[in-house]
Amino acid sequence: MYAAILGYGTIGSGVAAVLEENAAIIAAKAGMPVEAKYVLDIREFPGDPVEKKLVRDIRVILEDPEIEVVVETMGGLEPAHTFVKSALEAGKSVVTSNKELVAKYGAQLIALAAEKNINFFFEASVGGGIPVIRPMIQCLTADDILEIEGILNGTTNYMLTRMKKEGIPYDEVLKDAQEKGYAERNPAADVEGFDACRKIAILTSLACGRQVDFEDISTTGITGITSEDVAYAAAMQRDIKLIASSKKTEKGLFAKVSPVMIPADHPLYMVSDVFNAVKVTGNMLGDVMFYGKGAGKYPTASAVVSDVIEAVKNKGRNIRIAWNPDKLQLADPAEFESRFFLRVKGTKDDFGKVQELFADAQLVSDQIAEGEIGCLVGPVSYGEFTGKTQKLPGFLSCMFVKD
Amino acid sequence: MYAAILGYGTIGSGVAAVLEENAAIIAAKAGMPVEAKYVLDIREFPGDPVEKKLVRDIRVILEDPEIEVVVETMGGLEPAHTFVKSALEAGKSVVTSNKELVAKYGAQLIALAAEKNINFFFEASVGGGIPVIRPMIQCLTADDILEIEGILNGTTNYMLTRMKKEGIPYDEVLKDAQEKGYAERNPAADVEGFDACRKIAILTSLACGRQVDFEDISTTGITGITSEDVAYAAAMQRDIKLIASSKKTEKGLFAKVSPVMIPADHPLYMVSDVFNAVKVTGNMLGDVMFYGKGAGKYPTASAVVSDVIEAVKNKGRNIRIAWNPDKLQLADPAEFESRFFLRVKGTKDDFGKVQELFADAQLVSDQIAEGEIGCLVGPVSYGEFTGKTQKLPGFLSCMFVKD
Repeated sequence: MYAAILGYGTIGSGVAAVLEENAAIIAAKAGMPVEAKYVLDIREFPGDPVEKKLVRDIRVILEDPEIEVVVETMGGLEPAHTFVKSALEAGKSVVTSNKELVAKYGAQLIALAAEKNINFFFEASVGGGIPVIRPMIQCLTADDILEIEGILNGTTNYMLTRMKKEGIPYDEVLKDAQEKGYAERNPAADVEGFDACRKIAILTSLACGRQVDFEDISTTGITGITSEDVAYAAAMQRDIKLIASSKKTEKGLFAKVSPVMIPADHPLYMVSDVFNAVKVTGNMLGDVMFYGKGAGKYPTASAVVSDVIEAVKNKGRNIRIAWNPDKLQLADPAEFESRFFLRVKGTKDDFGKVQELFADAQLVSDQIAEGEIGCLVGPVSYGEFTGKTQKLPGFLSCMFVKD
Repeated sequence: MYAAILGYGTIGSGVAAVLEENAAIIAAKAGMPVEAKYVLDIREFPGDPVEKKLVRDIRVILEDPEIEVVVETMGGLEPAHTFVKSALEAGKSVVTSNKELVAKYGAQLIALAAEKNINFFFEASVGGGIPVIRPMIQCLTADDILEIEGILNGTTNYMLTRMKKEGIPYDEVLKDAQEKGYAERNPAADVEGFDACRKIAILTSLACGRQVDFEDISTTGITGITSEDVAYAAAMQRDIKLIASSKKTEKGLFAKVSPVMIPADHPLYMVSDVFNAVKVTGNMLGDVMFYGKGAGKYPTASAVVSDVIEAVKNKGRNIRIAWNPDKLQLADPAEFESRFFLRVKGTKDDFGKVQELFADAQLVSDQIAEGEIGCLVGPVSYGEFTGKTQKLPGFLSCMFVKD
């Protein structure tokens, strides 16, 4: 069976390497050899064995009847979307690692694949090498999914881990992550939470079977997190993680990305460095968690190739994925109930002002930073909480707290 | 679509409850309603709604053309094996939670299902509700699986967690686990490691695509573990877990079940109480881990029902599972290399005797128990290690140590 790879960057070259290196295992699992016939890229790769397979015109791939699976590892919306759509229209199954594409056009591309009786697979778009999409589609099917909580961005998790373990301030950790190649020169996609936002949009769409627009998800990154926040969290036996989550409640489905102080007995607490994990709670199943490397050339390529193998095994048969283009209106974030940590200017004598607004307030510490106190309040709705903090003299900052 | 449930015990009644409670979700995922038409049990259940569905004769089920899927939740080898085989021969897909049946007859039943173009699924046989079998079959397919390490028995993990956290001795913890219903009155299947042994045999067979006989897997349970062992582990910043593992090496495939002292940064370290987890290492993927409740009525029933849904979705089409009946000869356990902890009668002045045999020996403590010392040695092959400990005066006990 022949495949074509669109984009010979980190993931694309990883896919080519995995197909080559594990060829015998892959042939055994797929029931036939799987080979990359073409690689589409506008760049030159002199001396690289890919040279002979390089093409610049997508039509070569679309018009070759030998190509059964197209692997899209270009990233970004265009030309990825046009190419993927054309490949599906040409009757070729598509496998992608592109979370932006899936978050935006997943529902339509799934419908198009179903119509053509081929497949559109995207395991590598969330959690890199961690199997999570296929388990959601094929394993957690007997359950009402009540909650998803994930650490879905390895870069920010690495940064938060170093801030905690070594007490390094944010700016320095970011510089280090950039030097190590974990963070881009423009780190916004990671540190502002945009990457995690697209991933939780995908998982939530799969859990509820309807389109959840990532633009609707309230998203806060880690750029505002200071060493003092980390110290306050530690004083509460907690750890700050960038949590992407969605939760089914009587008020509707809440979805958000934000830093959260989580306790030591939370399954995500142990997820450090560049590791990712997704915890899914079902009404029958309770909690299950999937853990592993959420990024990186070979883990991500491994997930892409496992999708290629599924596409080969399911030739001529569409695997039904319940993700309806019909948009789901998320619940109002102001109604989300949580406990909150807040920092307020003053000394412990000023704690009374916090208590006046929040009767259940607890003083966390007045020792972490000069001239301020940290407090814990709630559970209270986010709307009520922000309303009250606007009236609170000396209010500095706040963060979600999970029990 | 109609199913029949064989055995109305904990899991069987859970399956009936999940089918009822989550009927709408299940119908949406399966593409049609799924209902239990019969329940086979020799007992009476007066007043239970199951009464109307109870049958005592398997032939009623086998001969009813409306029954497409048979769910086996009786446990044990017989009559489960005969019933399952008859169901497959009658052209009905089978879903089971029975690890004994799968470990012993999995390869044959898979082959029979393939021949009949139906399916034999067994997600719930390992890790209860945790998706691990289907991810092994359908997600980790691009990788050469190098190692599997799992905490596959919730009862023993609960016991070890309490021994550690509360310093309670083994006998007392066992009694408590029996009172809580976690351990059977005859606890051998759990505490001797037999249950974990069958589960690692299943996972290893799936990883290598060949039959691994559970009888060949060197198995040690937790009955010999004392409060002192737990204290020594803590002195080494480690924790004792009952680890079921298999590892591909140049000497062949090693598989074993045994208590292991694992370090705090090992992903399985945080797996406490009745939780289970399986860590799988691929040559491209690195480590991934699946975590959740490894037992219990509803989590296990949820996994069974997800298999029923897959069977419905794949009517008329066998999902290929690469598990050849051809037996794999495991590597000689004597050649397995590890570090080891050992307890020796004497004081720290006797440490020299240990060093004479093991040049790399380290003294862990002479303070944990009166009149003995604990030492760490290796890496060394298990054969060489046991040979030397036979010559060691005052040798008391030993345990595997993982770095």
